[in-house]
Amino acid sequence: MIAELGAVPPVAEATPPAAGAIASILPALRTMLGERLSTGNSVREQHGRGEGVPDLFPPDAVTFPESNEEVAAIARLCSAHRVPIVPFGAGTSLEGHVTALRGGLSVDLSRMDRVLDVSPEALDCRVQAGMTRLRLNAELRSHGLFFPIDPGADASIGGMAATRASGTAAVRYGTMRENVLGLTVVTPDGRIVRIGSRARKSSTGLDLTRLYVGSEGTLGLITEVQLRLHGLPEAVSAAVCQFPDVRLALDATISILQAGIPMARIEFVNALQMRMCIRYSKLEGLAEQPTLFLEFQGSPAAVAEQVELVQALCEEAGGNGFLWANRPEERSRLWKARHDTYYANLHYLPGRSQMGTDACVPISALAECILETEADVAATGLLAPLVGHVGDGNFHLGILFDPTSPEERARADGLARRTGERAIRLGGTCSGEHGIGMHKLDLAAEEHGEALSLMWAVKNALDPLGIMNPGKLLKPLN
Amino acid sequence: MIAELGAVPPVAEATPPAAGAIASILPALRTMLGERLSTGNSVREQHGRGEGVPDLFPPDAVTFPESNEEVAAIARLCSAHRVPIVPFGAGTSLEGHVTALRGGLSVDLSRMDRVLDVSPEALDCRVQAGMTRLRLNAELRSHGLFFPIDPGADASIGGMAATRASGTAAVRYGTMRENVLGLTVVTPDGRIVRIGSRARKSSTGLDLTRLYVGSEGTLGLITEVQLRLHGLPEAVSAAVCQFPDVRLALDATISILQAGIPMARIEFVNALQMRMCIRYSKLEGLAEQPTLFLEFQGSPAAVAEQVELVQALCEEAGGNGFLWANRPEERSRLWKARHDTYYANLHYLPGRSQMGTDACVPISALAECILETEADVAATGLLAPLVGHVGDGNFHLGILFDPTSPEERARADGLARRTGERAIRLGGTCSGEHGIGMHKLDLAAEEHGEALSLMWAVKNALDPLGIMNPGKLLKPLN
Repeated sequence: MIAELGAVPPVAEATPPAAGAIASILPALRTMLGERLSTGNSVREQHGRGEGVPDLFPPDAVTFPESNEEVAAIARLCSAHRVPIVPFGAGTSLEGHVTALRGGLSVDLSRMDRVLDVSPEALDCRVQAGMTRLRLNAELRSHGLFFPIDPGADASIGGMAATRASGTAAVRYGTMRENVLGLTVVTPDGRIVRIGSRARKSSTGLDLTRLYVGSEGTLGLITEVQLRLHGLPEAVSAAVCQFPDVRLALDATISILQAGIPMARIEFVNALQMRMCIRYSKLEGLAEQPTLFLEFQGSPAAVAEQVELVQALCEEAGGNGFLWANRPEERSRLWKARHDTYYANLHYLPGRSQMGTDACVPISALAECILETEADVAATGLLAPLVGHVGDGNFHLGILFDPTSPEERARADGLARRTGERAIRLGGTCSGEHGIGMHKLDLAAEEHGEALSLMWAVKNALDPLGIMNPGKLLKPLN
Repeated sequence: MIAELGAVPPVAEATPPAAGAIASILPALRTMLGERLSTGNSVREQHGRGEGVPDLFPPDAVTFPESNEEVAAIARLCSAHRVPIVPFGAGTSLEGHVTALRGGLSVDLSRMDRVLDVSPEALDCRVQAGMTRLRLNAELRSHGLFFPIDPGADASIGGMAATRASGTAAVRYGTMRENVLGLTVVTPDGRIVRIGSRARKSSTGLDLTRLYVGSEGTLGLITEVQLRLHGLPEAVSAAVCQFPDVRLALDATISILQAGIPMARIEFVNALQMRMCIRYSKLEGLAEQPTLFLEFQGSPAAVAEQVELVQALCEEAGGNGFLWANRPEERSRLWKARHDTYYANLHYLPGRSQMGTDACVPISALAECILETEADVAATGLLAPLVGHVGDGNFHLGILFDPTSPEERARADGLARRTGERAIRLGGTCSGEHGIGMHKLDLAAEEHGEALSLMWAVKNALDPLGIMNPGKLLKPLN
């Protein structure tokens, strides 16, 4: 049947599943999976939160499939009884992607964790969704290869694809959007569909790969991922440069990007975050000032040239000169300090929780966005250090609040919301890499405007029963 | 209403428009557009073919809107009367994307050709869809910027987005997939929807930008494009290296990619194509052998280092030593020879037409794919020179045939089809950059398998009346 003249298909969410629907599929799941089905409280709680989510929404049961066929059989059962499906990778999501807001079944893919194929000639590999980032890189090392996307946590590759992850190395290598060549997806009605190919580019049809990358489990389950890989760099060097103010640090960043220097990482750390890092990681010789952490990769000669150019550009912008970290252990110490900001913050203010939020703007608007955000932080009276993958215009705010005080939590919520709104107003997005999950539905709706109705049309077309990770990614239209 | 249990929405194409539907909207179009509506034969014929399409499928009328609002009003009229809409940019498509297979209205966007905004700090710009590539780069030069995607033809930016164009520089800069940040799209029911943002990355919802990029006008009309830009390189150098056989040339290519050298271009030209180029472009000092055309960009020191590394890798692989083109006029001459292959081929065999086809495979399979294709060419008895953007695994076959001989055309068709099938069998795609248009529906269906039904679900959700560029991109399922 053809829809009414010019109308888009209905966009309301599907009816929530009937209470107790899970009960009708448990016997079949038990027969299929045996011990790999769990309804125990501890396993359910472990799958009902993700990182940094204060409230718990446990699924009714958790499954641990080991093959595409098992995932497909689970999906068919859930479809037949309208049981919500919540895909689960490593559980490192910060926005509540894995919470079971309407109960249902958590499908934990951690047992599907093999490398299926590696080609050093084609610079690609195919992995199952439950493979984690660090283990993949350990397996690739013997081939002289690595997978560059580094969101910090040791996330699963499937989860990284589902949330369009990126992190510190995206300025050089792109995000999951640029590094996923193809996928195997299990549709909610239980079909196993291979999308994309091993070709680096293609112009043969709608780009389903990019549609599922970042879909946060709302369209289907990602079970396999074809990844682009890169050769291990011959030389790596790192440095730190401090600036008298935020704007000068970002002027230097813009100059570096305009010069086309292929930086491996450009990380910004604001003055407050530096104070916490210096104290926690015992960094010597550094002041509580806006700081750039820089990494260079390439051949020794290329690295030497990049360093010289960047040093000149930083000096020109008013930077204080470079502090070097050329030996691997010095470099590790520096990046460990950067990666340990979460612990540094909690250590600085014991008893507080951290609400992490991120936003991304055009780089031309980044100084303005960060300065306004710092002023907003000051006005709230909360401590909220700021770090950023500034080569991409992306920054994170770690808002510290007293979890026992509803008033402080509300203040933290308000600060996070205004940060997203500010990014949208400046031509950017309310999340560069954490995603929407359950927390940013309103902000994303504000960002997308009319485009949200197109997203709902696509969602309803590919998940007509609305069983895939309900309550995430897309705010209901009415 | 919720669709039936586990079922995807109906996937048949919408009913073809009623004959004469166009007549009922002409008066309203005339009132709105005046002279910017044409039903004259010459204008209709000019809009009914594209490049290299032997058969003519003219639209019933052609419109030349000048604003988003006019495009939206046209779409609303077409929706109300089920008149097919065929978007038209510069008409340089090679796969018949602009043919009006079922009549209807061609919407020529060439009058929407302004740069709306440029930011040298953010390295981005926003242009109307009808802006062409060469004119955009002329306007960007004064900002020290350029837009790197180079498909050869002076295509419109909207058309390049709609077909996911790429070309010679994609190995360094990516394709339209990587370089479009956002779009303005007019939906078939006449809504003006802004998708994406100016942020370099985002994880806030389904990736509609990538969904419309490459959709070949089947989901809506692209009227504005937000593009990533790059700083003009300080130094450029080009060289040519010849090899005793295809496999050695591709071994060299793989080594260059594995070493992570940021090549600006790596173009392969096979022996037959070299014969035609040498004759037409009067290239001296070159033999009729498999050849790599190489371009290096960056700072002078970076270019010097890249050149040294690549020279060593090419020698190691058995290359004959570099022929240099350092002065701009030498470089232009070299790349002109590469870009003039179409004319070289027609000059070599007067009276023949060229059927161009392209395919893309993992680079590890490229030598095998090219060798098999060369053997297939030899078996057909046709002349079909081959060139390739081999850094991406992408190659083109220019099949020369006598347009007055149905038998030769059938042989050419068979060769093109087998080339696509071979690429699919080797893990690749039946088109790296030309797209599907009207010619490769069967091949794309073979490539996508079950994924085609997901594409149809998306198509039907966003174009429920089936009026957007009917008969293109997606083969009917039944």
